[in-house]
Amino acid sequence: MRLFQERGYDRTTMRAIAQEAGVSVGIAYYYFESKDVLIQGFYDRITREHARDAAERMEGVRDFAARLEIALASWLDCAGRYHAFGTQFFRTAADPDSPVSPFSEQSRPARATAVALFADVLAGSDLARKLDPELAAQLPELLWLLLMAVVLHWVLDRTPDTTRTRELVRRSTPLAARLISMSRYRLLRPLVHDVTTLCRDFLLPAAATRTATRGA
Amino acid sequence: MRLFQERGYDRTTMRAIAQEAGVSVGIAYYYFESKDVLIQGFYDRITREHARDAAERMEGVRDFAARLEIALASWLDCAGRYHAFGTQFFRTAADPDSPVSPFSEQSRPARATAVALFADVLAGSDLARKLDPELAAQLPELLWLLLMAVVLHWVLDRTPDTTRTRELVRRSTPLAARLISMSRYRLLRPLVHDVTTLCRDFLLPAAATRTATRGA
Repeated sequence: MRLFQERGYDRTTMRAIAQEAGVSVGIAYYYFESKDVLIQGFYDRITREHARDAAERMEGVRDFAARLEIALASWLDCAGRYHAFGTQFFRTAADPDSPVSPFSEQSRPARATAVALFADVLAGSDLARKLDPELAAQLPELLWLLLMAVVLHWVLDRTPDTTRTRELVRRSTPLAARLISMSRYRLLRPLVHDVTTLCRDFLLPAAATRTATRGA
Repeated sequence: MRLFQERGYDRTTMRAIAQEAGVSVGIAYYYFESKDVLIQGFYDRITREHARDAAERMEGVRDFAARLEIALASWLDCAGRYHAFGTQFFRTAADPDSPVSPFSEQSRPARATAVALFADVLAGSDLARKLDPELAAQLPELLWLLLMAVVLHWVLDRTPDTTRTRELVRRSTPLAARLISMSRYRLLRPLVHDVTTLCRDFLLPAAATRTATRGA
């Protein structure tokens, strides 16, 4: 991390990283086949820390909006000290062919951990069992997409201590809760169904191959 | 464009570009102070072509969803032959500090052209004068954000002829029209207001400085 900070991502070689870690270049490549895999390791670590921290802080909280806010704020707290690398990593992860893209096959385990956290956000809340089953089944992944939107905002955020992203989380979570809650009205059901289906077909990674065979 | 395609963006020097264009390096730098500015020129050109093409194709069409679909499909048609460079340009434009980011100060003229196009999408449609004035005022910029989402999907799209993005446009435009249309229901007004305000404060470039002083 220090080398990336000092030299920038592109100019930091695996050789320099190995030297800094006091191991041979061969050993470094044995554990991390490229610099990109180091970023993957960084994602995995944040994801695990985030899942643990959020679960702890949600304990005893039943209000859905409050649980969702905790889950998103917890990510900001866990990732906070890495913000300086955000843009660097983003340039690498933004390439859809990159294995470190959050939507890639290689990121599946980290994604599964995060989606499980959002399943827990819903399951432990006062909204559980009140939602349409179709929406309830899709919601954890949709909330993960909300986290991805927050992460994107955070990467681009230049305010001190990413205050603006924190405000986004504070303001968007009650709104998301209201939207999800309103989905129960019969009038809105068809719209909710269509929005959910669109998100599933076009935004969620697992849908990438499914969609090709689906009609308009 | 050919050099970028052959060598990749990073490895194409201004010297090579000047040589290819048959001008001196000095002249090349006189017109384009860096490679990034060349990308800006490319954006500006697509934006102008898009505005012209979409206006032509929308003529005589009154249905809002149909006009919106034309506007978005027209962008895909105008940008189609540059798709191979999409990822390269995206890596540059995704950096918020880059002048070629669509949200940057330098991209303001191109953005204004695109937003004006979406104002026309609404103004020439059957929805004009039926919407809440607050939403109507904000809608052109919100539709521009929808275009940015489509562009992002297009950049990441690996299907032949970006078929999947075309399907996204086909399916999302009637849905967007229904959402906007439903905003007229009294029941939904407060929600529409809050969603619109949130988008304005956090997603639209002009809001970047405004937001800091706004409360939660």
